[in-house]
Amino acid sequence: MKEIPVELGDRSYTIRIGHGLLDSLGSLLPRCSRAAIVTDSNVAGLYLERARRAIEQAGVAAGAVVIPAGEEHKNRETLERVYDGLFGCGLDRGGVAVALGGGIVGDVAGFAAATFLRGVRCVQVPTTLLAAVDSSVGGKTGINHPRGKNMIGAFHQPSAVVIDPATLRTLPPRELSAGIAEVVKYAVIRDAAFFDYLERHGDELLALQPDAVQEVIATCCRIKADVVRADEREAGIRAILNYGHTFGHAIEAATGYGRYRHGEAVAIGMALAARLAVRLGMLGKDAAERQEALLRRFNLPARPEGVTADDIISLARADKKARDGRARFVLPTAIGSVTVTDDVPEQLVKGLL
Amino acid sequence: MKEIPVELGDRSYTIRIGHGLLDSLGSLLPRCSRAAIVTDSNVAGLYLERARRAIEQAGVAAGAVVIPAGEEHKNRETLERVYDGLFGCGLDRGGVAVALGGGIVGDVAGFAAATFLRGVRCVQVPTTLLAAVDSSVGGKTGINHPRGKNMIGAFHQPSAVVIDPATLRTLPPRELSAGIAEVVKYAVIRDAAFFDYLERHGDELLALQPDAVQEVIATCCRIKADVVRADEREAGIRAILNYGHTFGHAIEAATGYGRYRHGEAVAIGMALAARLAVRLGMLGKDAAERQEALLRRFNLPARPEGVTADDIISLARADKKARDGRARFVLPTAIGSVTVTDDVPEQLVKGLL
Repeated sequence: MKEIPVELGDRSYTIRIGHGLLDSLGSLLPRCSRAAIVTDSNVAGLYLERARRAIEQAGVAAGAVVIPAGEEHKNRETLERVYDGLFGCGLDRGGVAVALGGGIVGDVAGFAAATFLRGVRCVQVPTTLLAAVDSSVGGKTGINHPRGKNMIGAFHQPSAVVIDPATLRTLPPRELSAGIAEVVKYAVIRDAAFFDYLERHGDELLALQPDAVQEVIATCCRIKADVVRADEREAGIRAILNYGHTFGHAIEAATGYGRYRHGEAVAIGMALAARLAVRLGMLGKDAAERQEALLRRFNLPARPEGVTADDIISLARADKKARDGRARFVLPTAIGSVTVTDDVPEQLVKGLL
Repeated sequence: MKEIPVELGDRSYTIRIGHGLLDSLGSLLPRCSRAAIVTDSNVAGLYLERARRAIEQAGVAAGAVVIPAGEEHKNRETLERVYDGLFGCGLDRGGVAVALGGGIVGDVAGFAAATFLRGVRCVQVPTTLLAAVDSSVGGKTGINHPRGKNMIGAFHQPSAVVIDPATLRTLPPRELSAGIAEVVKYAVIRDAAFFDYLERHGDELLALQPDAVQEVIATCCRIKADVVRADEREAGIRAILNYGHTFGHAIEAATGYGRYRHGEAVAIGMALAARLAVRLGMLGKDAAERQEALLRRFNLPARPEGVTADDIISLARADKKARDGRARFVLPTAIGSVTVTDDVPEQLVKGLL
C-alpha cells in the first residue's frame, strides 16, 4: 500500500492506494457510527455489496444511495436524490458519505456531502482511473448546469481517499483511455521524467499491470496533492490542473456531453492547446508532436468532431475561469511545464479548427 | 459608524454599522468590476434602486435578482432562480453577490454565492433586525428542505457586512419584535449586563431610537463575532447560539413555517428551554420569569399554539444538531450563561406543553 498525505492544515487527509483495499474500507473510514454509500447503477452491481460488507465489518451501519449512471444525470435532480437518500439512511452531522464510483459519483456525492446539513464528511473511493488520479483528490465537487459543466459546486476536501486499483479491471477500455488522458496531463504540466516513463511503460499501463498502475496513480496523486496544497481554492497555480480543460469543457458542452468522455475531450483540449502554443511561438513543434503521439498511443482522439471554432470561443469565454469575458488558457512551454494566459487572439483559436 | 472585526484568518471581515451607510455601499464592497444584488419582492421596492445607485457610483456594474418574499420560498426553486439571475447578471468568479434584505434573502443569496462557480464573494446588507444581529454574520447559509429548516446549506463567510439601521424603519412591528427575540438570546447566553440594558432601554429599542439601535446591534454582533471566531464551523461552543432554536425549529416545522416568524418561534423556544432548565434544577425560577417578562414586553409569544409535545420531540430528534437520534438542547444556567446537553428525559419535555 502507498500512502500519500495531502497537507491542508485542519483539512489534511491521506490517499491510500493498494490492491484489495476495498475489503478494508471500514477500517479506513474516519470515526463514525453511520455511513451512506453513494454509487451509481453501473458500479452498484460490481462493488456495492463488497463495500457495504467491509464497512459493516468495522461496526459501522451502512446505507446506500444509487444514482443513475452517466454525465447527463450529473444535475440537480440527481443531487436531490442523493439528499433524499442521505436522509433515508439516517445520516446526521456525525455520519460519513462514501462516494463509490467514477468522477461523476465523486463530484455529486462530494457536493451533496458539502451541503447536507451544511456539511458532512466524505470519503472518496474512486473505481475509475480518471477519478483515482483526478476528481477524488483536491476537494472540487459539483454538478452541471444548463449554462455549463460543474457550474454549481463547492470546495469540500474528503476526509480520506481509498483507491483499490483492482477495481479498474472492470473498466471498459474506452474509460481506461479517458482516464489516461488525465495521467498524460500531469506529466505534461509538471514532470518530464514521468512523461518518459509513460512512453516506456504505456503497454503495461494499458494492460493494468499492478505495479505500473499503482506507480502511475501514486505519481499523479502526488503531483495533484502538491498543487492543491499550494493553492487549495484555485487562486493561482492550481489553474494549471486545467490544462486541456478550457477547450475540453467547451467541446463537451458543444457536443451535449454525449459524444466524448470527459478524458477524451481533455485529450483533444491538450492537443489543441499544444498546437496553439506552437503557433504563439511558446512551444517547439517536436514537443507538441510527442504529446500527440502519446495520446494516440493510448487510443485518445486529438481532433474534435461536430464542433465549430465559434462554439469553442463563446463557451470558453463563459468558462468558470474566465475573467471579465476573457478566456484563460493553460499552455505548455515544454514537456513538464505550462503557463497560464488570457492573452490569446481569437483569430489564432479559430485557425486551429 | 461602528466597525466590528470578525477575525477568521484569511476569511476575516468587518461589520460596519451606521445610519445612512446604504448610500455608501459601493465604496464598502471588496474590489470587483461587477456585482449582483439579490433581494426579495418586498425589499426591492424600498431599497433596490438606492443600493444599485450606490454601487454604480463606485464604478461597479450592478445587476439585480429579485426573489419572492417569504419563508415558504426559501427552497431549491428559489435557489435555482438566484443561480439563473447570477448567470443573467454575467457574474464571474471575480464578481460579488450582494444580499440585500432579511434573513431569508441572506441565507439563500449566501448559499447561492457559496456554490455558484464553486464560490463567489458575498456582501451581506441586512435590512431587518433579525438579519442584522444574527443571520448576516457568521457565514451560515442555506435553504429549507421538506425534512426541515436549513437542512441544505454551507458555511460561507461574507466578505463584508454593511448594516444601515435606518432601513429598519420600514419593518412591520411584528418583524421588529421577531428580531428582538434574537437580541434577547445574546443577552441570556453571554451578557447579563446587556440583559439589564434591554430591561432599561426597551422602549428606545422598540421606538428605533438611533443610538439605542446602533448600540444594540453592535453588542449583538460583537458577541456573535466572538463566538464564531472561537468555533467557526459549530464543532463546540457555537452551538450556544442555537439557544431557543431546537424547540424553535421544531415549532416552525410543526406549524408549516406559516404561523410563527422565526424570531417568534425562537422566543417560545427560549421560554420552553428556561422552563425545562428550571425543572432540571439548573436554573432559578426567578431568572426564567425575568426572561419571560422581557420577551412579553417586546410583544413576543412564550407558549406555542398548534403544536403537540410529540411533534416537538420527533422534530428535535431530526434536527441538524442531533447526534445518533438524541436531541441537543441549549439550556440557561443563569441570565448570561448557558450549557449544552443531550441528556434530557423526553418525559420532561412532554410535560412542558
